Amino acid sequence: MKSFIPPKRTLMGPGPSDVSDRILEAMARPTLGHLDPDFQRMMEEVKEGLKALFRTENKLTFPVSAPGSAGMETCFANLVDEGDTVVVIRNGVFGERMRENVVRAGGNAVMVDAEWGTTPKLEDVEAALEANPDAKILAFVHAETSTGVWADAEALAELARKYDCLTIMDAVTSLGGIPVEIDGWQIDAVYSGSQKCLSCTPGLSPVSFSDKAIKKVKARKTPVRSWFLDLSLVMSYWDGEGGRSYHHTAPVNALYGLHEALVMVSEEGLENVWVRHAVMHEALAAGLEKLGLKFLVDEEIRLPQLNAMVVPDGVDEASVRAYLLEKHNLEIGAGLGPMAGKVWRIGLMGSSASEENVELCITAIADALKAHQYPVDGIAALEAARVVLDE
Amino acid sequence: MKSFIPPKRTLMGPGPSDVSDRILEAMARPTLGHLDPDFQRMMEEVKEGLKALFRTENKLTFPVSAPGSAGMETCFANLVDEGDTVVVIRNGVFGERMRENVVRAGGNAVMVDAEWGTTPKLEDVEAALEANPDAKILAFVHAETSTGVWADAEALAELARKYDCLTIMDAVTSLGGIPVEIDGWQIDAVYSGSQKCLSCTPGLSPVSFSDKAIKKVKARKTPVRSWFLDLSLVMSYWDGEGGRSYHHTAPVNALYGLHEALVMVSEEGLENVWVRHAVMHEALAAGLEKLGLKFLVDEEIRLPQLNAMVVPDGVDEASVRAYLLEKHNLEIGAGLGPMAGKVWRIGLMGSSASEENVELCITAIADALKAHQYPVDGIAALEAARVVLDE
Repeated sequence: MKSFIPPKRTLMGPGPSDVSDRILEAMARPTLGHLDPDFQRMMEEVKEGLKALFRTENKLTFPVSAPGSAGMETCFANLVDEGDTVVVIRNGVFGERMRENVVRAGGNAVMVDAEWGTTPKLEDVEAALEANPDAKILAFVHAETSTGVWADAEALAELARKYDCLTIMDAVTSLGGIPVEIDGWQIDAVYSGSQKCLSCTPGLSPVSFSDKAIKKVKARKTPVRSWFLDLSLVMSYWDGEGGRSYHHTAPVNALYGLHEALVMVSEEGLENVWVRHAVMHEALAAGLEKLGLKFLVDEEIRLPQLNAMVVPDGVDEASVRAYLLEKHNLEIGAGLGPMAGKVWRIGLMGSSASEENVELCITAIADALKAHQYPVDGIAALEAARVVLDE
Repeated sequence: MKSFIPPKRTLMGPGPSDVSDRILEAMARPTLGHLDPDFQRMMEEVKEGLKALFRTENKLTFPVSAPGSAGMETCFANLVDEGDTVVVIRNGVFGERMRENVVRAGGNAVMVDAEWGTTPKLEDVEAALEANPDAKILAFVHAETSTGVWADAEALAELARKYDCLTIMDAVTSLGGIPVEIDGWQIDAVYSGSQKCLSCTPGLSPVSFSDKAIKKVKARKTPVRSWFLDLSLVMSYWDGEGGRSYHHTAPVNALYGLHEALVMVSEEGLENVWVRHAVMHEALAAGLEKLGLKFLVDEEIRLPQLNAMVVPDGVDEASVRAYLLEKHNLEIGAGLGPMAGKVWRIGLMGSSASEENVELCITAIADALKAHQYPVDGIAALEAARVVLDE
């Protein structure tokens, strides 16, 4: 067994995204104890940084010590009590995962389905809420990583309130890439991931809970089914007031990385970060469309940070990805579930949303398509992207 | 918000332990995608390294993507079915946490209690197994981090088999510090942590399951209550055979660190690692006893890697710890639960089990005791330790 030296890839899949040297260096700083006073000061800064990122004053805002799937489970395991009905929007992998979470928590899931690559009409969601007056929660994915669909979170949250439901929102791929306004939209529970638009390494899941959400958790009839993710216990560690007590050992160095990512966002300015993602998406779209590729998702509901491109007829999608990895050290993502073999998922998340990456991606894909007997004009595509970037 | 530069501490508490530069450097290597073929090869090496460390051929051996508490929950959530009776030994914090896990999983916990700092008699455990013929599992802590008690895992596992029970063993603090023989002792489920005797950063929990354990999981009447920790799903990612599919995004860089830790153990040799822990403990014990400090735990059940020392009458234990941290950058641990204020917990785990640390610890504690009006002879204590180290 020998030390593992990974190759240097460019990460333009559905996450992890490129991790900057600043974050990697931060993670390599000396480990502190999880109850060290200096570390606890850093924890307070992480909470404040996450509140700024989520645009919330929610006191209960912190990173779960595990990947985004555990953040999802934190929301569902705590908010869904035995027998609760939850209306779940399903238009991709993560809506289905929400259903699984509702069931594991002992709740009943009422599904509102829409074809992958689309989003359900608000009328359909309202019909489900109307038909289920006992529903306690509306759950939806803000940025569906499996398709690249952008949900209208504000409108959905408003609908939920109209029917006296709390909201659980998946912001794994949205946070730090497009506007997320937890207080502005009155979202009650939200979870995200460190490895998408924050460009940290994977392993942490920022979450935030409104006072209404906390009230529901406190009024539970049955204990939370997870000890590790039970908010009332986790908070004894993450809540600074009255002193911290040990619950579990926090992933200290991973939190150094998240802290540095939050510093980087505050330096660039959150609004500027959103603009950067939007511009890089426009440039990439111009280039890829010039190559003849089509988007899976209609323009008005298309995410900038996750571009699902339809694989042209006759092209072997896995072979193209393998070629990109081997010849260009470029990772892009495959389709999931019913989209397997049909789309590529190209991420422009966090540090990966850069001019350099846009140009590399267009050049490399043009090369890969040519190598797969699909002739394209790479120079023209690059020029189309440059026009956007030079504006 | 500015970058966080932690001070350099010496970590001799109950974990995290000192993380070597080799591991920190490994963690700072470029992030790969969690489905990258190069990363998948590394995952296979991690599994092989963990099997060697656990001394097992169990195919289902991998690190859970979260801290030790999540490894514990992985064992209980999967193995305890609704209504199952589990006999749990409780002689510290982690036995009580096991009880909580049984209840959250829908099982009934039958407790075998022993005073903190002791271990129950085998007869008491046998009596509980005899009195509960429907018991399916015996759960115990191999190395109780809250007290420093070393359980006789082999004898307990034998008892469990006699009564047709599976075993769940907490090896969070034992793995890599004292012998752990999963196959030799026929343990069915075991979990550990990365931040103790492996000297990684916190955040991963190596686990291993026997075929008997897998058979019980497959025969469950009810679904596992956690989606994130459901073994049947997690294995679609960690099991290399037939290709990996996405379950959650693995903490890639943390796994680089664990990989490097496993390389370091294989270079030193596992038996040599155990001997080093034993020798450093003897040296530390000689020094601390020369200072007049007493162990909480009797010698025959005392762990080398976790030394619970009784706080002398009239000494303010928190003030001593604060002094050590401030003047010597040395972290030692406080007592938990009923031991709060009564003991210090001094860890000799992984990289922290070194001559340098033993000497620093004795010198610093002698200084701290003197500063707290408790006169001791630091020079004599250091000499007592040196005698052991020079042997």
